[in-house]
Amino acid sequence: MASAAGPPQKRQKTGDDGSTAETDAGTVLYSYWRSSCSWRVRIALALKDISYEYKAVHLVKDGGQQLQEGYAAINPMKEVPTLLIDGVQLKQSVPIIEYLDETRSSTGPSLVPRGSDAAGAAKRQKVRQLAELVSSGIQSVQNLRVLKYVMSMFDDVATKKEKKITWGRHWIAKGFEALEKELEQCSGTYCVGDTVTLADICLVPQVYNANRFKVDMSRFPNIVRINATLEQLPAFIAAAPNKMPDAQ
Amino acid sequence: MASAAGPPQKRQKTGDDGSTAETDAGTVLYSYWRSSCSWRVRIALALKDISYEYKAVHLVKDGGQQLQEGYAAINPMKEVPTLLIDGVQLKQSVPIIEYLDETRSSTGPSLVPRGSDAAGAAKRQKVRQLAELVSSGIQSVQNLRVLKYVMSMFDDVATKKEKKITWGRHWIAKGFEALEKELEQCSGTYCVGDTVTLADICLVPQVYNANRFKVDMSRFPNIVRINATLEQLPAFIAAAPNKMPDAQ
Repeated sequence: MASAAGPPQKRQKTGDDGSTAETDAGTVLYSYWRSSCSWRVRIALALKDISYEYKAVHLVKDGGQQLQEGYAAINPMKEVPTLLIDGVQLKQSVPIIEYLDETRSSTGPSLVPRGSDAAGAAKRQKVRQLAELVSSGIQSVQNLRVLKYVMSMFDDVATKKEKKITWGRHWIAKGFEALEKELEQCSGTYCVGDTVTLADICLVPQVYNANRFKVDMSRFPNIVRINATLEQLPAFIAAAPNKMPDAQ
Repeated sequence: MASAAGPPQKRQKTGDDGSTAETDAGTVLYSYWRSSCSWRVRIALALKDISYEYKAVHLVKDGGQQLQEGYAAINPMKEVPTLLIDGVQLKQSVPIIEYLDETRSSTGPSLVPRGSDAAGAAKRQKVRQLAELVSSGIQSVQNLRVLKYVMSMFDDVATKKEKKITWGRHWIAKGFEALEKELEQCSGTYCVGDTVTLADICLVPQVYNANRFKVDMSRFPNIVRINATLEQLPAFIAAAPNKMPDAQ
């Protein structure tokens, strides 16, 4: 694993009393530049203005550094990301983002809408539903470990490659058909209304993957529109794969 | 789709003022008896003492009733469950359970731990992490729609069957290896400490599937122990597949 200070850089913050201190000491993100789940957490960290040390875990090099003993002891699923923060070790991107939103409620947007009334609960459910549609319904079925296993079922190199592409394209297109229908009902500027939420954080890495797999995006105008808007936001720019120290 | 009043039955409840009324009017669960995600929601409904109308959506009959236009209009992912409650339409099992827990906080156990301090936030994250490990990390990769697609990649019937079994067994065993390691650290009577949570709700249907796929469970003593305890609880008994009106 390569270690490097990643964006956002560790920096001085000025407290209410005028004091300055290095913030978020000890916050470490184990990440891979192109991992969707790492990327989601990086966006949330940027939106919540949390500086952190970036530790690259290369998912391909050395047969996959996430499979090595040292990292597997931290993360038994042998996946990125893992976030060390506040003295605890957090895994699974969506629950990590819920944690960051709860513990940093006064910084940045509410990634999961608040509101203790019935409308608040329903809106929260909608945000989480769309996040799960992407996270559980698309990404987890087309991520690297599944693609590797699909390829392992075939012998010759050409078939492996063809099956990998067909597989990825199938699940992304299927999921996006459903997501587009949902967005027709609930989207505003962003996935759910006019503020950035957990659902948007899940959307952007998934669109990146859709483009890698050459999914026909013309069928998904709401997804394309919202993604284009999100890509202009500073936190989304800072967290993008090509800005990471391990980008290739 | 077949419609039937399912357990728990609609029934009279006595209010604080002595009045009686049919409760949870209009609550409808679209479910399939053996669907893990439907099962999770049924457990949560039972734990929260919510009566509902059971509408069976047969995932195999008629080429899959979830794919038919009528249901797909409600649930664009063409999956069960869908829950109609409080005048809203909820999808994705884990977010549905979060909603039920938030809106029925005074009934039954806290499925996602409360506590506004740092320890509360960390415990909440742990529960959600384990739920995601199962939901996103195992179930979504080995559910029926994925198995059907895996089988479609091969021509002869024997190979289809063999690949299906190998696939299911692989992903469940892999996920359970990680889950077992996590449970060594955080389990008590149940997955996280000594109260039933969302993580336990996800566990039981996954163990049922592990047994269907003949996964060697002797390697997972904590999973086996916790599952056996959960299976004795009334809400888990009431929500089991074989108690459903569409059970075969």
